[in-house]
Amino acid sequence: YGKNTIKFLRLHKEGKKHFVKEVEVCAHLRLTSPQEYLEGNNSLVIPTDTIKNIVLVLAKKNGIPSLEQFAIDICSHFMTTFCQVAYVKTYVQEVPWQRLHEDGVPHIHSFICVPDGIRFCEAEQCRNGPLVVFAGIKDLKLMKTTQSGFEGFCKNEHTTLPERHDRILCGELFCKWSYGECKDFDFNCIWYKIRECILEAFAGPPDCGEYSPSYQKTINSIQMLVLSRVSQVQVIEAVLNNTFYNVVDMKNLGLNNDKEVLVPVEAPYGSCACTLGRKKFFEA
Amino acid sequence: YGKNTIKFLRLHKEGKKHFVKEVEVCAHLRLTSPQEYLEGNNSLVIPTDTIKNIVLVLAKKNGIPSLEQFAIDICSHFMTTFCQVAYVKTYVQEVPWQRLHEDGVPHIHSFICVPDGIRFCEAEQCRNGPLVVFAGIKDLKLMKTTQSGFEGFCKNEHTTLPERHDRILCGELFCKWSYGECKDFDFNCIWYKIRECILEAFAGPPDCGEYSPSYQKTINSIQMLVLSRVSQVQVIEAVLNNTFYNVVDMKNLGLNNDKEVLVPVEAPYGSCACTLGRKKFFEA
Amino acid sequence: YGKNTIKFLRLHKEGKKHFVKEVEVCAHLRLTSPQEYLEGNNSLVIPTDTIKNIVLVLAKKNGIPSLEQFAIDICSHFMTTFCQVAYVKTYVQEVPWQRLHEDGVPHIHSFICVPDGIRFCEAEQCRNGPLVVFAGIKDLKLMKTTQSGFEGFCKNEHTTLPERHDRILCGELFCKWSYGECKDFDFNCIWYKIRECILEAFAGPPDCGEYSPSYQKTINSIQMLVLSRVSQVQVIEAVLNNTFYNVVDMKNLGLNNDKEVLVPVEAPYGSCACTLGRKKFFEA
Amino acid sequence: YGKNTIKFLRLHKEGKKHFVKEVEVCAHLRLTSPQEYLEGNNSLVIPTDTIKNIVLVLAKKNGIPSLEQFAIDICSHFMTTFCQVAYVKTYVQEVPWQRLHEDGVPHIHSFICVPDGIRFCEAEQCRNGPLVVFAGIKDLKLMKTTQSGFEGFCKNEHTTLPERHDRILCGELFCKWSYGECKDFDFNCIWYKIRECILEAFAGPPDCGEYSPSYQKTINSIQMLVLSRVSQVQVIEAVLNNTFYNVVDMKNLGLNNDKEVLVPVEAPYGSCACTLGRKKFFEA
Repeated sequence: YGKNTIKFLRLHKEGKKHFVKEVEVCAHLRLTSPQEYLEGNNSLVIPTDTIKNIVLVLAKKNGIPSLEQFAIDICSHFMTTFCQVAYVKTYVQEVPWQRLHEDGVPHIHSFICVPDGIRFCEAEQCRNGPLVVFAGIKDLKLMKTTQSGFEGFCKNEHTTLPERHDRILCGELFCKWSYGECKDFDFNCIWYKIRECILEAFAGPPDCGEYSPSYQKTINSIQMLVLSRVSQVQVIEAVLNNTFYNVVDMKNLGLNNDKEVLVPVEAPYGSCACTLGRKKFFEA
Repeated sequence: YGKNTIKFLRLHKEGKKHFVKEVEVCAHLRLTSPQEYLEGNNSLVIPTDTIKNIVLVLAKKNGIPSLEQFAIDICSHFMTTFCQVAYVKTYVQEVPWQRLHEDGVPHIHSFICVPDGIRFCEAEQCRNGPLVVFAGIKDLKLMKTTQSGFEGFCKNEHTTLPERHDRILCGELFCKWSYGECKDFDFNCIWYKIRECILEAFAGPPDCGEYSPSYQKTINSIQMLVLSRVSQVQVIEAVLNNTFYNVVDMKNLGLNNDKEVLVPVEAPYGSCACTLGRKKFFEA
Repeated sequence: YGKNTIKFLRLHKEGKKHFVKEVEVCAHLRLTSPQEYLEGNNSLVIPTDTIKNIVLVLAKKNGIPSLEQFAIDICSHFMTTFCQVAYVKTYVQEVPWQRLHEDGVPHIHSFICVPDGIRFCEAEQCRNGPLVVFAGIKDLKLMKTTQSGFEGFCKNEHTTLPERHDRILCGELFCKWSYGECKDFDFNCIWYKIRECILEAFAGPPDCGEYSPSYQKTINSIQMLVLSRVSQVQVIEAVLNNTFYNVVDMKNLGLNNDKEVLVPVEAPYGSCACTLGRKKFFEA
Repeated sequence: YGKNTIKFLRLHKEGKKHFVKEVEVCAHLRLTSPQEYLEGNNSLVIPTDTIKNIVLVLAKKNGIPSLEQFAIDICSHFMTTFCQVAYVKTYVQEVPWQRLHEDGVPHIHSFICVPDGIRFCEAEQCRNGPLVVFAGIKDLKLMKTTQSGFEGFCKNEHTTLPERHDRILCGELFCKWSYGECKDFDFNCIWYKIRECILEAFAGPPDCGEYSPSYQKTINSIQMLVLSRVSQVQVIEAVLNNTFYNVVDMKNLGLNNDKEVLVPVEAPYGSCACTLGRKKFFEA
């Protein structure tokens, strides 16, 4: 197979107001025959350069109403146009430009990059198969400074970790979910709703939070809330890359450090992940 | 000289509400004698490990009311405690944690990382010299989709760039400014005011913007606005690392692309910089 | 599941001569029950900290005779020791320290880091399943300045790429292969032999090279040579992330550039991949 | 001022043998008037695009006999051609392509990237001032597994570091030196000679090494050896970014770890630097 990455910016205007979408598109094709590999026969090969042109032409013609619709458009184009394509997958990721505001007034053509979680999506299709759409968020860094512990874990002669009932929970979250049949979805609206669910489930109620007995349980809470609130989501995968913080021991410096000064532990670096669906759960 | 980097998190509570500051501190010392280099005599050397301990102890005792105050505290400590220190510089940079909100309600202990411009500061002092404080913002990515051009530049036989009066202006901004004598400054308040000035000068009025004839002039506008609005700033340096966007030529694809689809040009990559002070200007 | 990354250095001495191995180990466990996720019951969970301790203890006791043997040791330990582990995968990657030489004489304890392709391996096992071992090389950057072209590809109205019979072929190679039943393998020796095959198949004979009609065919040549020369390899996957170079058009600068000055094209960025086994081929 | 970065590849042939030089050039100009900043008057501005064209044209016409000669050529061109240029600095850095060998036979057109220390240089000139040439190496990672300690350092109540007489010395080295009047220098030959000196001074004799009482002393030894062996070097600056390794305490795991298993300490991260000249030393 082959894939390639194209970065570009799509600009459009409504009156004097500008709208900007900067994306990175990665198209991934598999052909029906491997003759290019085995025989060096290039007659079925669609060059990277042509793929780039197609993506740019589709952006020009259709715009990017949502990342998901744009990914769907690209998949459809390749399936319809090239009979030698056996499988196509399109990944689209957004540069998080947000409109600038001055004293609450939105600016008509100025933007600031605010990378507090990157939106992405995927559309994939096998010839004669259904079009499947995924969406997700990545690089979302979250922290809870209390209401987190880790106790009652498996112990043996290699255990040195103490039990803790009040630690920092911090990590970088990746979530990816699949939609079922995508009829008339408002992809933008759904995405923001899911982002809200993720933040709410991570943090708990604003006045008191909710105790997390492990990174794993927090992941599960996020998945459960999304599945219960957003009916369009079929399956949701979540990965949390943890950053651990250790309370600095200041006894030999003559001080009692009551969880006031902590240092991040860069190694070992942990991660936990789970995939949860509607009817049955399964771990990946 | 020697320097080193320490990352840590300072947590404090007011009632049930948590406040978090995660910083990266880089301390830079020069000693009065180079005997460690020339003779391998370590008797004056302050080990990295000791510097780390001092920074953590100061954070524990004083907290981090502002990055600037913390940098000043560290400088003062080294100057006062170690007579072999001839010069000290402290750089402090913040991890941009922001409090999470749910339906507008602030969460008491949950935070999200929002890197839309990183705040930093520097304090430096030579023995018997004044303490000088700098503050700044970096990694601030901004874009204007119109009201920018570049015309009337120097031309010769190596010129291939066409004149343009409606291009994208996009770049990553670095600004660093110095304060005069720092008596009773509200460093946090001043920093946010300067950030507002930068955004306003970059973007112009929200309803129409302001035409920029070059990256250089935009930099100058930012500097002029900061100097005119914020009296505490003595000198301001600004660097703009440009990202150029080219309108894709779609003629041979049978389309007329009216600044709708653009691709970033990764090389050549340009940058322009200027330092502006109160009475006289000078370029660095 | 959970995984985590541990970096460490293993030093050993034979007489006065030092040997150093610095590795990054990533262990990936799946448990028989998801109760940690669903119920917040941690009783089966093996903490990251314990996993780290186990890896370090195994390194201390067994050393690292080869990356592969070390990965096998870790897998076996988890399977044998913890009955709640349903699946374990271990990834081991090497920091490419090489012994320094002075005028051809090897130094007894000094090393230089030479990252011309990073060696890695994987061992994985399901409970009651066989132990499977993979090895590989990544970040191997290669270039051929001639004997490469791309012609006869699929063309339509979106094609703008010209045919070329003398281009630069350049890219970053990733190869990963599996071994069959690993009885008494000399993993170090085999790995170096495979690296030689890869370089030879990429470059062709030293005095004339070998024409490559596409990135795809070059990948296939590499796979074919490894499979034919190294009987221990069962299946080999290869991915080539291409860097394209364009000959700079200097006509409007009054010069004829005969493939002397080229610029890398950063986007679109392409990649092609293939997996080849012994009896049948299949594309992934 | 303005600067910009240009990456390109220069290829040339001698008979059937190919020679490749891939470089990144950064040109930095300061003009005699700041009118572009203050008035938005672009008439003296030399666009990034023109600078790129000039660099590529010089590469085409002159080739790149050495990085230093190429940097000198660029400086001279700007000073000679544009009277509005007050100052020019050119930085040139090399992509470390090395010719592939098969069984000791050099390949005529295939190369491998071997980044074991990156070569760079700088040439700078003020109008009416001399042309000054610097050269250097960066990203050179070295390790000594013994013959290094750190004892007798300054101690007070914040000291927790134990004295050590047998530690790992590891770091990333940056060295930059200036040449005097550059008449008929063989820049390539000199650079390789200096690289040899650096490695030799770092490692000591191959059969026994040489004890280093501190990072600082090792830096000084490198500088002293270069100045004594290479008469063309006037001043040499060296920076060593240290990686510390801690011996893992395995007592509570029931094992005695005799400097066999060590983990890198990612923070605090230290660095030490010194600049040494011919007649007098001075620290920067």
